[in-house]
Amino acid sequence: MKVALDVMGGDRAPAVNLAGAKDALACYPSIEKLFLVGDQGAIEAEAPTHGLDLKDPRLEIIHAAEVISMCEPGATTIRRKKQSSISLALDLVKAGRADAFVSAGNTGACVAGAQIKLRLIPGIERPGIASALPNEFGACHLLDAGANPEAKPSHLLGYAIMGSAFATGVMGVKRPKVGIMSNGEEDEKGTAFTKDTFKLIKEFTETSKAPFEFLGNVEGHDLFESELDVCLCDGFTGNVVLKSCEATAKAMSKWLKASLTASPVRKMGALIAKGAFAELKERASAESYGGSPLLGVNGVVIIAHGGSSALAIRNAIRVGVESVNHQVNLHISETLERLKG
Amino acid sequence: MKVALDVMGGDRAPAVNLAGAKDALACYPSIEKLFLVGDQGAIEAEAPTHGLDLKDPRLEIIHAAEVISMCEPGATTIRRKKQSSISLALDLVKAGRADAFVSAGNTGACVAGAQIKLRLIPGIERPGIASALPNEFGACHLLDAGANPEAKPSHLLGYAIMGSAFATGVMGVKRPKVGIMSNGEEDEKGTAFTKDTFKLIKEFTETSKAPFEFLGNVEGHDLFESELDVCLCDGFTGNVVLKSCEATAKAMSKWLKASLTASPVRKMGALIAKGAFAELKERASAESYGGSPLLGVNGVVIIAHGGSSALAIRNAIRVGVESVNHQVNLHISETLERLKG
Repeated sequence: MKVALDVMGGDRAPAVNLAGAKDALACYPSIEKLFLVGDQGAIEAEAPTHGLDLKDPRLEIIHAAEVISMCEPGATTIRRKKQSSISLALDLVKAGRADAFVSAGNTGACVAGAQIKLRLIPGIERPGIASALPNEFGACHLLDAGANPEAKPSHLLGYAIMGSAFATGVMGVKRPKVGIMSNGEEDEKGTAFTKDTFKLIKEFTETSKAPFEFLGNVEGHDLFESELDVCLCDGFTGNVVLKSCEATAKAMSKWLKASLTASPVRKMGALIAKGAFAELKERASAESYGGSPLLGVNGVVIIAHGGSSALAIRNAIRVGVESVNHQVNLHISETLERLKG
Repeated sequence: MKVALDVMGGDRAPAVNLAGAKDALACYPSIEKLFLVGDQGAIEAEAPTHGLDLKDPRLEIIHAAEVISMCEPGATTIRRKKQSSISLALDLVKAGRADAFVSAGNTGACVAGAQIKLRLIPGIERPGIASALPNEFGACHLLDAGANPEAKPSHLLGYAIMGSAFATGVMGVKRPKVGIMSNGEEDEKGTAFTKDTFKLIKEFTETSKAPFEFLGNVEGHDLFESELDVCLCDGFTGNVVLKSCEATAKAMSKWLKASLTASPVRKMGALIAKGAFAELKERASAESYGGSPLLGVNGVVIIAHGGSSALAIRNAIRVGVESVNHQVNLHISETLERLKG
């Protein structure tokens, strides 16, 4: 298993990426090679701070002379900056030298780069990011969480097929449940876009052997309370929902901490019950997932948050390893083939 | 102060509305009259269960022979069902018999009914629901949270003006901060719609004496971590974000409870620190706000959740009382007048 890590990606690069790389090597022995793609000087200067031994034969630096910053327009910049860490890391996947690419960098650049270099899986119109939100039944995947902000209904049909192939192949869900994020559960709720999507997917399930059960429109509470495996949305809505959920969880944790430390008695109670808070953090934190697969491209591409911590980067690398092991793209291709036949 | 309550509104009508009415009468002595608008028979049958004394001179039943259910298309049904509780309650406001209307019923019907019966404030193109999300600085108002799912940029400019008049007049914020919900903070992020909105509001702030400071694009975390008073969005996005935030808070509370009751030791710790959990619930629960004002119509209209509890209904009535006391609409009209001059 070989993984290419964009060391220059994210708001806290290269520090968190190097620290995450070190932890990933320790935690995931199946990684034979971890390519550190980025500025060689910066990597060599920072590596010791994070206890990363660059002489480790499992590590290899791929020097990238350019960086795509978080605020550059991704799709155009990736075409121009051919020596950027994102470009070179994707080249490794394209050449078969790496099995997975992990980046906390510019999402637009990662998506456009992956599409240009790795190409789309035949039958897929647009790639989509599948971000997991933990729930009682495992996780609900928001698809798309930001690759394709202005999607068309046909793109969401593609997401439904890819998302259910992912849920079956990776999560082990027999018959995945798919819904459309809307402003109400009734069939007639939504915008022109969600209504057209509803109609298209309903038609599809009635005329084809859909690899999923279609639940129709869903709402926020379904993300956590329903057995919902894939929540379809355009990338704008998905991104906004994902960030709002994460922000709420973070605010709740902060408020809880403030309330628990407001008096000595409460502090004592909190100390006694501390295992519960650690459990909640583990369950609710975005860091626990770390990275989201970009579905629809010929290769494993894992998108991490720009604000990722070292733990999030380690977990994003784990998601990359799991995606390769589970042969996500093979499941997607096979599902598409079955639909043709 | 006279309030018209739609007793038939919401998933748990009339029970929660009657229980909420009883609590509101006890808590808010400034209410001289609370109109219970709904099916007289149902009200008379259920009132005793909730300890509501119908002989109280502060109560008056307005019989409504029709009900608009939660799943009927609001805008068309309100025109047809002239004897519905929503219609008759709005008639009370229109006739000046009530100062505020409160409903947990069909949002589409409430919005369309308010627009038809009360008319828009001159200068306003579309009404919008301002839903409060609690944060460290008080609250951020999502505007619109669902009245106008497919908004135009000019509608959002109206929301910016109304939202800032509301923040100043009701919340006491000197120079409100207004942002556009987007999938990234950089100016160039977003969809064609959010980009056009950004341009329009930027132009407005450059050429007029805008009653707010424009922060540009904002993201989920800004709702809780930034001094942001008004977060602009189309009604689809606002509704989806609001429900997702509420669902996350609810899921977090549930997980916390599960973790805290997982062992006798944790249970003991939780008991000792129980004040902290009550505080968190009070702070994070949607019930604490209860209702959201529909801004832009000539009258006070408070929209409560379909799933409202009695506590939420009581608080929605409180929001109605406060909106009347603070003369929200006068602030909006005056702000619009100043912009003309």
